Amino acid sequence: MLRVGIIGVSGFTGLELVKLLLHHPLVEIDYLASRSHVGQPLSDVFPSLKNICDKIIEPIDENKFSRLDVVFLALPHGVSMELACKLFGKVRIIDLSADFRLPKDLYEKWYKPHLCPDLIKEAVYGLPELNREKIKKASLIANPGCYATASILAVLPFLDIIESDIIIDAKSGVTGAGKSLREDLLFSEIESSFKAYSPAKHRHQPEIEYTLSLFESVNVTFVPHLLPINRGILATAYAGLVDKSDEEFLFEKLEKFYLNEPFVRVSKMLPQINNCTGTNFCDVSFALDKANKRIIIISVIDNLLKGASSQAVQNMNVMFGINEEEGLDLKPYYP
Amino acid sequence: MLRVGIIGVSGFTGLELVKLLLHHPLVEIDYLASRSHVGQPLSDVFPSLKNICDKIIEPIDENKFSRLDVVFLALPHGVSMELACKLFGKVRIIDLSADFRLPKDLYEKWYKPHLCPDLIKEAVYGLPELNREKIKKASLIANPGCYATASILAVLPFLDIIESDIIIDAKSGVTGAGKSLREDLLFSEIESSFKAYSPAKHRHQPEIEYTLSLFESVNVTFVPHLLPINRGILATAYAGLVDKSDEEFLFEKLEKFYLNEPFVRVSKMLPQINNCTGTNFCDVSFALDKANKRIIIISVIDNLLKGASSQAVQNMNVMFGINEEEGLDLKPYYP
Amino acid sequence: MLRVGIIGVSGFTGLELVKLLLHHPLVEIDYLASRSHVGQPLSDVFPSLKNICDKIIEPIDENKFSRLDVVFLALPHGVSMELACKLFGKVRIIDLSADFRLPKDLYEKWYKPHLCPDLIKEAVYGLPELNREKIKKASLIANPGCYATASILAVLPFLDIIESDIIIDAKSGVTGAGKSLREDLLFSEIESSFKAYSPAKHRHQPEIEYTLSLFESVNVTFVPHLLPINRGILATAYAGLVDKSDEEFLFEKLEKFYLNEPFVRVSKMLPQINNCTGTNFCDVSFALDKANKRIIIISVIDNLLKGASSQAVQNMNVMFGINEEEGLDLKPYYP
Amino acid sequence: MLRVGIIGVSGFTGLELVKLLLHHPLVEIDYLASRSHVGQPLSDVFPSLKNICDKIIEPIDENKFSRLDVVFLALPHGVSMELACKLFGKVRIIDLSADFRLPKDLYEKWYKPHLCPDLIKEAVYGLPELNREKIKKASLIANPGCYATASILAVLPFLDIIESDIIIDAKSGVTGAGKSLREDLLFSEIESSFKAYSPAKHRHQPEIEYTLSLFESVNVTFVPHLLPINRGILATAYAGLVDKSDEEFLFEKLEKFYLNEPFVRVSKMLPQINNCTGTNFCDVSFALDKANKRIIIISVIDNLLKGASSQAVQNMNVMFGINEEEGLDLKPYYP
Repeated sequence: MLRVGIIGVSGFTGLELVKLLLHHPLVEIDYLASRSHVGQPLSDVFPSLKNICDKIIEPIDENKFSRLDVVFLALPHGVSMELACKLFGKVRIIDLSADFRLPKDLYEKWYKPHLCPDLIKEAVYGLPELNREKIKKASLIANPGCYATASILAVLPFLDIIESDIIIDAKSGVTGAGKSLREDLLFSEIESSFKAYSPAKHRHQPEIEYTLSLFESVNVTFVPHLLPINRGILATAYAGLVDKSDEEFLFEKLEKFYLNEPFVRVSKMLPQINNCTGTNFCDVSFALDKANKRIIIISVIDNLLKGASSQAVQNMNVMFGINEEEGLDLKPYYP
Repeated sequence: MLRVGIIGVSGFTGLELVKLLLHHPLVEIDYLASRSHVGQPLSDVFPSLKNICDKIIEPIDENKFSRLDVVFLALPHGVSMELACKLFGKVRIIDLSADFRLPKDLYEKWYKPHLCPDLIKEAVYGLPELNREKIKKASLIANPGCYATASILAVLPFLDIIESDIIIDAKSGVTGAGKSLREDLLFSEIESSFKAYSPAKHRHQPEIEYTLSLFESVNVTFVPHLLPINRGILATAYAGLVDKSDEEFLFEKLEKFYLNEPFVRVSKMLPQINNCTGTNFCDVSFALDKANKRIIIISVIDNLLKGASSQAVQNMNVMFGINEEEGLDLKPYYP
Repeated sequence: MLRVGIIGVSGFTGLELVKLLLHHPLVEIDYLASRSHVGQPLSDVFPSLKNICDKIIEPIDENKFSRLDVVFLALPHGVSMELACKLFGKVRIIDLSADFRLPKDLYEKWYKPHLCPDLIKEAVYGLPELNREKIKKASLIANPGCYATASILAVLPFLDIIESDIIIDAKSGVTGAGKSLREDLLFSEIESSFKAYSPAKHRHQPEIEYTLSLFESVNVTFVPHLLPINRGILATAYAGLVDKSDEEFLFEKLEKFYLNEPFVRVSKMLPQINNCTGTNFCDVSFALDKANKRIIIISVIDNLLKGASSQAVQNMNVMFGINEEEGLDLKPYYP
Repeated sequence: MLRVGIIGVSGFTGLELVKLLLHHPLVEIDYLASRSHVGQPLSDVFPSLKNICDKIIEPIDENKFSRLDVVFLALPHGVSMELACKLFGKVRIIDLSADFRLPKDLYEKWYKPHLCPDLIKEAVYGLPELNREKIKKASLIANPGCYATASILAVLPFLDIIESDIIIDAKSGVTGAGKSLREDLLFSEIESSFKAYSPAKHRHQPEIEYTLSLFESVNVTFVPHLLPINRGILATAYAGLVDKSDEEFLFEKLEKFYLNEPFVRVSKMLPQINNCTGTNFCDVSFALDKANKRIIIISVIDNLLKGASSQAVQNMNVMFGINEEEGLDLKPYYP
């Protein structure tokens, strides 16, 4: 049994981690901590967990980590790196924040000064479809962003046959913003509505562009939008094709790329969010705009799962040599 | 391993049964049948199941049942009893329809002529909190209706201290109506709306009144309403108190009643639907209207789970002497 | 042209008043004031009003009222009475708060100490279907609560033939709670969910009971619930019938009661929220539970309109001898 | 008073026309016809209209048109042109279908053989912001498609400074699909979900590309998506800038372009659907992706209003020399 700790359990990704790890047959949740609600049972914060997880939330205490095999940090950017610096080398870390996803200069351009830049190069970007071998040996995983996961998995299979200018129009449910008490997250502001936000200014843009550019140099225009739903991301990616292609060729290319991937479902049918919600799947399909020699790739994930917490568990499985699908046989919420 | 069959897999309760039984460690799904979509993989009907259950839907064939330990009938009223008549004695049956929930006369008053009335007395009403001992030995389970489950579990603990006139105002998500292609189930008709339907004429009224009256003679006024959500039922039950009571007494009574029940969560906090969705729990709480000497009991379930398919699995566990919670460690969907 | 002022324009009822009064052919909005956002155009607070109402929000200044014919107070309870005390006699007042709806003792039991109890008896409860004649001459209107409007209009026609114990199970959209920044009003907490709140403790209960009891002494059990929609209330009222009645008799009674009422629509079809949203209508229908000699009355309103702002305009029309329907020819939002 | 007829009143655009024209001070609705529900009051089809429009639905009868000044055809593609052929020259026609929006060859490529191709050149594309002068004299208006309206109004102001390759990622509420009884329009399939449909194959693509290309030759990739809301379209358009530009220059250009347009609201704030719902406005804003020298233009409309019925009324006003804003002082639905 792996002994795990989850730090930051009062947020949505922390909550999802708890649900996933309780369900994992080879894991024992040893330590639940948070900066708030210390001393309360977790089921006081999330009444849905009553009789499921009534464990007490502990304070964040560095002495508690030595007994753990792995710790999940579900903390805000900035807070996470501070703790990671202290824990590195003592326990394997899966960090769900953005703190170790980007090289120092890029991170500091989009976020804030980095407190332990030397650690960045130790971190492995935790997208198993990309970095499985490196993840196996990693001490510190930078778990990918939700938009980045959906976008990279959409574009990656076609990277060698598309032009370098890529447009990604992404749409996310509101849990992507967490439980923040903001007026624009009130029900009355979101229900029956829809909007774009941070166009060409969202911090997942450099993450997508940087990660893809490790393979082929690309420029990404990224525009996220807010859906009046709780869970799910759909990304629509647009790119010119270098050569004329037909649908059959493109489909075979996509299918072959993800042939052995347990958590990417390739289909000719266009994906829709409610088929993925509740699972670790990324559904990918595409359409061809022949007249304009352009491919339109569409991917769907559950932002809290493959976009955060279940991808973190997938990384844990890979890190510890466990069957990658263990504990991730999740059933879709639909209907 | 129990070998199970699910008949009627193209509806929502059939779909939920598939998801639950795939998740159950002591079960092997041997036979999936339906009256429609025969020959197609189940994941063609429900694309959410791609790579999860691509099993082919078979026709309903009486010869296939002898090899099974138990069969779930997720068929419409009327269709179900026809098949149950033929299978009775050959395989243990859990029937999710209304066909065996009521005595002959009451059934025929509210539904239609019964095809095998002699079988009704063989059937056990599958509410484990009520009939656990009988369920253990049953050959035929009449799995309770969704509204009936929520309503009975709300009222039962207080039955000996309330007056006989009970009002139940219930509210359900739209999956209760299944996947029927009806104009009033279109998104445009339900979104941002709410309505009552079949007031004092809904067929779960006799089920509730009959079941409760086995213990204390009661009269039930039942009015269901349609919520603009997919899953969940909240029932608000109103009854006069025979004697003056205080909240502490009532809470202790409720708590004691469900003390050993693994799937009823009693709380002083009022229940809400999103805390139950995705689980087999029934959440129950109450308020006291002192001025009017009246108790208001509120219960919540997931209509497709404790209100149908997971309750059916709970019944299966009881019937076969399996740990009652096996395969039912479901995590709430929230958020 | 009537010169009107609206105080409290940064809340939802204030916003609705602005939209309605802009649309009213005999009204000129002279004065928009609020305790917050002073100096900003109203369209900064509500961008939907851009190019529709870019008027500057003024501070609340007692000197501004003398030039007005009527002032609408869309302020919180407690704040409203303070201002009303000062303005009474100088300008006719339509108060949308609860401050003048109840006798002193009842008000102080459910709310807080009253600052100008002498004024209460000067106030007319502004339900035109009940008090049209008094409203004509009133200096101070206590505009009814949203739940109270729906509930009273449902029960009133049957008051002389029902027993005194009445149960009202009401369901409201979230705009009833205004724009408060509360965690339980976040999209993630309300979407796909439903709950009861303040059962038998809601402050509209005494308003309903007191108003109905002016005609027949009744006891009301009142339980409100929160719907995952923005607008609309549906109230389901339950009461025993003194004598046996048939549906035809009850329908005629209902129809006759509202025969000349322009804003109550009586129908045999059960009402649903999306047929009323956007209008000043109250839709009323009923069902008969013959077995239990009980009537179930169902009413629907738009909580922000007939439940607040358009009813206030209806009161203004009556007060000033204007055609009661003037400016209230609103078209339903559906679809 | 203009005497108008509305043909096709049992659909959503017909319903919206009725509501708008009842509200229009210079119009008398003389004739309501439909292919279905003939002989029933319109309020039987749409109970929301009870006491608002109980007029009887008449059959479509060519003899009824001579007395009218203008007729609105809210009919499906193909059906509309059949009737328009017969009526042309006898009454001015505003056709909400696609039948006269495209040149013959383009129409027949995307739709079906045209029954009266000679009439196409008589038709004026009814986008007042583009064709006001021609609309004044038109006998036949081809009222633009909903996606086309949002897309063209977004791109038009920048057409002379952008490259020819344009990508439009559009998102619409479900009323765009009308009231069709289709499984994919059921509440259970749309709630909490989102999907793309007809990528690069939607019939508004040629309409957008053709209309824009009258000014500058462009290639449009168009991908629509389905939002879990009833009303509203948000279009996100992407195009490369020919020259480097800054935000101030682009904003002034946009503002100047729509300076005198009563129904286009230009803002630096990004538009969101609930600010437009219920009105004839198109809200337009943009963002600049400097790194990629690309503009991102975002527009919002109510698909049933500026995207269909209120734009048709705007066209009527222009055709008859009425103040263009007459009857269109609509108030946003928000909240």
